[in-house]
Amino acid sequence: MTVAAAASSPPTHPLDDALVLGAVAPGQYTARTSPAYWNMVGPFGGITAATLLRAVLQHPDRLGDPLSLTVNYAGAIAEGEFTVQALPVRTNRSTQHWTLSILQPGADGAPVVTTTATAVTAVRRETWSLPDTPMPETQGPEGLERVTRGMPVQWLDRYDLRPVSGALPVHWDGGSGDSSLSRLWMRDEPARPLDFCALAALADVFFPRVWLRRARQVPAGTVSLTVYFHASSEQLAATGSGHLLGQARAQEFRNGFFDQTAQLWNQRGTMLASSHQIVYYKE
Amino acid sequence: MTVAAAASSPPTHPLDDALVLGAVAPGQYTARTSPAYWNMVGPFGGITAATLLRAVLQHPDRLGDPLSLTVNYAGAIAEGEFTVQALPVRTNRSTQHWTLSILQPGADGAPVVTTTATAVTAVRRETWSLPDTPMPETQGPEGLERVTRGMPVQWLDRYDLRPVSGALPVHWDGGSGDSSLSRLWMRDEPARPLDFCALAALADVFFPRVWLRRARQVPAGTVSLTVYFHASSEQLAATGSGHLLGQARAQEFRNGFFDQTAQLWNQRGTMLASSHQIVYYKE
Repeated sequence: MTVAAAASSPPTHPLDDALVLGAVAPGQYTARTSPAYWNMVGPFGGITAATLLRAVLQHPDRLGDPLSLTVNYAGAIAEGEFTVQALPVRTNRSTQHWTLSILQPGADGAPVVTTTATAVTAVRRETWSLPDTPMPETQGPEGLERVTRGMPVQWLDRYDLRPVSGALPVHWDGGSGDSSLSRLWMRDEPARPLDFCALAALADVFFPRVWLRRARQVPAGTVSLTVYFHASSEQLAATGSGHLLGQARAQEFRNGFFDQTAQLWNQRGTMLASSHQIVYYKE
Repeated sequence: MTVAAAASSPPTHPLDDALVLGAVAPGQYTARTSPAYWNMVGPFGGITAATLLRAVLQHPDRLGDPLSLTVNYAGAIAEGEFTVQALPVRTNRSTQHWTLSILQPGADGAPVVTTTATAVTAVRRETWSLPDTPMPETQGPEGLERVTRGMPVQWLDRYDLRPVSGALPVHWDGGSGDSSLSRLWMRDEPARPLDFCALAALADVFFPRVWLRRARQVPAGTVSLTVYFHASSEQLAATGSGHLLGQARAQEFRNGFFDQTAQLWNQRGTMLASSHQIVYYKE
């Protein structure tokens, strides 16, 4: 019986496993880091963003869909349990403002903030609309080579990433490239229908622009990430498990930090999200 | 004697007047809205961003200079007194993470959140650096016409704004332009040496991109603004009271919200800040 029951329930996607939140009280959840999305010294930043967004979406008082999310990576989340707090601090007629944080016990047992965030959700109505940054014309994902599996970080194996241009340098020879622009097709691996949480995580899959510009793997890590959601639930459903085209570039590398702007379109050319981050780099 | 004393003390700049914070407790301040920076139904968003940043800079425990600031405009600030809270929730070796909010008494006297924000400050060291979005070549500010004074909103008179391209439509005829890109020279009016707070405010002086694209003044307002600071104090000092070149463009207008990306350079071509916002628009 037990075997039959297990066989009839399909395995959950690693993303859904990683985003399981146990509600302790309204707006307070417990979660666990997922080995499947582990980065070097903590979880992949995208999975942390997705987890915070999931906390908003799971809140009983939530109004509307995600409009913006800003996540500040204050410190690495240690392997194991953590607490997510999501508070709707102001609810208007059609927008709602959230403050979020992730906490873990520190060395002395007292809670330490590892992550701060804010989010806005909104009820959106159909209006005059206009795409003002059309998707660049590129070849489709079919036939393009995937980024090699078996990289030293786990989370990369959770994504099907197919660079069109601006791939990781082949020779780490310290020679600077002439552009920080990368374009790549991306989706969850295994394929999974797109939703707001998956989209938030995808906004953070670009490798550090400083590696492209320096052809050196200097230590680097996102300090603050912002995602603006343009997609409706219907557009996410229409995108399904298809690839997105992601584009990222840096604007300024200065004294230990660079900024990155990014856009994500589905294969129909609809911009689903735009994103920005400021990233620490060493040396 | 009183007259002589008054005569010897130069009048303060309206920006400094607007940013006066009275410390009630560590991280808790009282402030007043400034008529000089009034917008239509509340203060100019840039002055609110600058006020929040001032609260960080004035905090006795602050580490380093501003690196990033995200401000979420949850509701209009009413004319009069308001409370600013600035908490350093995590201090690392070279970065510090802040959560911020602005509160005013609501109809029943209980405090209501009008604004949420997060900020990161950082001690920066000299590293390999590279400008990756050079300042566009344009004519200088000299000889360019200033945006007309006497607009219906007060705050516009606090800025010397000289459009190079993408100025406000001359004819509000509902005809859509072919680009949402604007470039303009900008500085405080009267001229004032640049600092981080002034820079944060300048990041928000661009009129709503939807006006440019629709040639219709539909209601619009910033929901969330992010500023990444690339400048050091020394670079701000070197910029002095010179004009900055600001550039802004929209990426996507969709169902009531559009996003804007912006860059600000000084006249030497050094990028001082990059900025992003998501903006509500009606119809």
